[in-house]
Amino acid sequence: MRLPSLLMSVPAFAPGTPGYQAIVDHALMTTRGVRQRLDFDRDVDDQIILDCIDVAEQAPTGGNNGSRRWMIIRDQQTKDRMAELYLSAGVDWVIETAKRLEGSGHQNERLMAGARHLGENIARTPALVIPTILGRHDGSGRPGLFDSVIQSAWSFMVALRSRGLGTVWTTMYLNEAPAVAELLELPDHVTQICLFPVAYTIGTDFTPTSRRYPAADIAYFDRYGRTKSQSGPGVVDEIDLKAKPEAVRAAIESLDVPADAWRFDLEQVPGGSRVRLHAPVGPSDDSSTVLAEVRRTLDTLSERLKS
Amino acid sequence: MRLPSLLMSVPAFAPGTPGYQAIVDHALMTTRGVRQRLDFDRDVDDQIILDCIDVAEQAPTGGNNGSRRWMIIRDQQTKDRMAELYLSAGVDWVIETAKRLEGSGHQNERLMAGARHLGENIARTPALVIPTILGRHDGSGRPGLFDSVIQSAWSFMVALRSRGLGTVWTTMYLNEAPAVAELLELPDHVTQICLFPVAYTIGTDFTPTSRRYPAADIAYFDRYGRTKSQSGPGVVDEIDLKAKPEAVRAAIESLDVPADAWRFDLEQVPGGSRVRLHAPVGPSDDSSTVLAEVRRTLDTLSERLKS
Ligand SMILES: Cc1cc2nc3c(=O)[nH]c(=O)nc-3n(C[C@H](O)[C@H](O)[C@H](O)COP(=O)(O)O)c2cc1C
Ligand SMILES: Cc1cc2nc3c(=O)[nH]c(=O)nc-3n(C[C@H](O)[C@H](O)[C@H](O)COP(=O)(O)O)c2cc1C
Repeated sequence: MRLPSLLMSVPAFAPGTPGYQAIVDHALMTTRGVRQRLDFDRDVDDQIILDCIDVAEQAPTGGNNGSRRWMIIRDQQTKDRMAELYLSAGVDWVIETAKRLEGSGHQNERLMAGARHLGENIARTPALVIPTILGRHDGSGRPGLFDSVIQSAWSFMVALRSRGLGTVWTTMYLNEAPAVAELLELPDHVTQICLFPVAYTIGTDFTPTSRRYPAADIAYFDRYGRTKSQSGPGVVDEIDLKAKPEAVRAAIESLDVPADAWRFDLEQVPGGSRVRLHAPVGPSDDSSTVLAEVRRTLDTLSERLKS
Repeated sequence: MRLPSLLMSVPAFAPGTPGYQAIVDHALMTTRGVRQRLDFDRDVDDQIILDCIDVAEQAPTGGNNGSRRWMIIRDQQTKDRMAELYLSAGVDWVIETAKRLEGSGHQNERLMAGARHLGENIARTPALVIPTILGRHDGSGRPGLFDSVIQSAWSFMVALRSRGLGTVWTTMYLNEAPAVAELLELPDHVTQICLFPVAYTIGTDFTPTSRRYPAADIAYFDRYGRTKSQSGPGVVDEIDLKAKPEAVRAAIESLDVPADAWRFDLEQVPGGSRVRLHAPVGPSDDSSTVLAEVRRTLDTLSERLKS
């Protein structure tokens, strides 16, 4: 697939214009992980998937090499076997948890219900797609290898979205990666990245999620932890604590905080809570000094929770 | 930044419509790595970068956790020091190579000239942006950790593009990652992903690159190496050889190939050549049998080049 060259000269295709920007932002911000609203009954043409791969292949790649290979699973018997592996990789346990959370109001109830729905129906997905890359990661702690394929896999998701289809990035199945490799006859030098169940979505009215930090809180200027917001410069530091948010909340209230304008953000993370403490930096303040105070406060918090 | 809720109900914002799809495809397919056409003389507002981060943060993230932190370098002294580290990480050597390739017509001449131009001017870039993620990779060979940040970094690039800005994904600087971490005061548990020099682009008329494989050649159906093209099913296998493309081309011509319809693709890769051999699978053929023949042929090719 090639972009019609005509498109290139149409004003709507001018990056920097508000219409272009709004549509691109919309696509990037509303490509959700879809599980409950995959249409398992509507077929997907091979060509649509190939078109999305052609779009995806334009993503950047280290050294300009094309080392991605894409598996598309359409055969029902193979899908059935993939579904078994998908479950035995840990999704069977997710389904049990989802049953337990049903009606509990737990923050992950909806996510788990979606994962259950997908797990129970994955063999009915019109197509399963696995992006792979030639090579093995060197274990160096650097992204190398993965950073020439993950961009492409994400483009694939956004290209599906632009066509009214959807999917969800799944990796739990990688617990069964060797069995999947055997089933699909992947050579040893091929690394699997994720599994995409691909289908039309039921409706296309997905919206941005509120479960992300605002950029102004996690973008640091020149030195780590230094923020700029509309109200001026600030610093932020954070700590992960092995305690429930309620316990942390109580401990925060017992703290003697230097200034009223300090703001604590509290979030549940696996194994405990994450606390982020923001402090404004006034015109006569030194940001390193304020940051040191913030760190001390978080350390105190951590100690209080231990005792 | 939030998408105006009004947008959600405007027909132009309907995924699945041709206009929406064409613009999203255009953005995903024309977000090139830009080096020569970065406008070092036009300033970029902080808010544009923060907006692009807000777009980027909507990318999928494992377990719904928000563990990305973004460094934005604006201070000239810090940029100057970053430029030194950028060069000492290996770009100084790239610049020497670029000088040598100048006018040679080598396939990487343009790429290297671009890398040189960027290397010589990087301190003039309006902003340097480094996406990071909390945590260290477990060395498991799985993408985990990187797959909750690389999508976001790519969204950032596309969001810049939609606003008429550009950048290039650079990782060579990671050879100096510890010095960069010290300069920017990154804590030990933070992993750097890449460095983006951010600027307006000079013109916005970037186009898709032809240096990618067509999807039909690298998308495999149900079993690795099984392709479908408009002319019917086929198989493909490939081999990397430590020999120059010309030598490989000669060896290919000496082969006794079972069918005329077999197609060899030859590409230069670091350290040698990659040969891809495509063979059609007729209605009475078994694809595994044809694939075995293809493999044998590639093995023969490899042996001939050794002797
Ligand atoms: C993982 C990765 C690492 C890269 N590292 C560098 C780099 O260190 N320096 C550079 O100039 N370009 C770098 N690039 C940019 C690539 O050279 C560029 O994306 C590729 O040539 C394809 O060109 P395109 O982005 O225009 O499609 C990198 C790209 C990726 C994806
Ligand atoms: C690296 C990664 C791994 C994921 N693994 C799974 C998975 O195994 N199963 C699943 O149902 N969802 C998985 N997801 C989807 C996330 O749960 C989902 O993207 C996240 O909750 C954010 O929701 P959103 O995509 O709607 O923004 C994964 C996402 C990422 C990025």
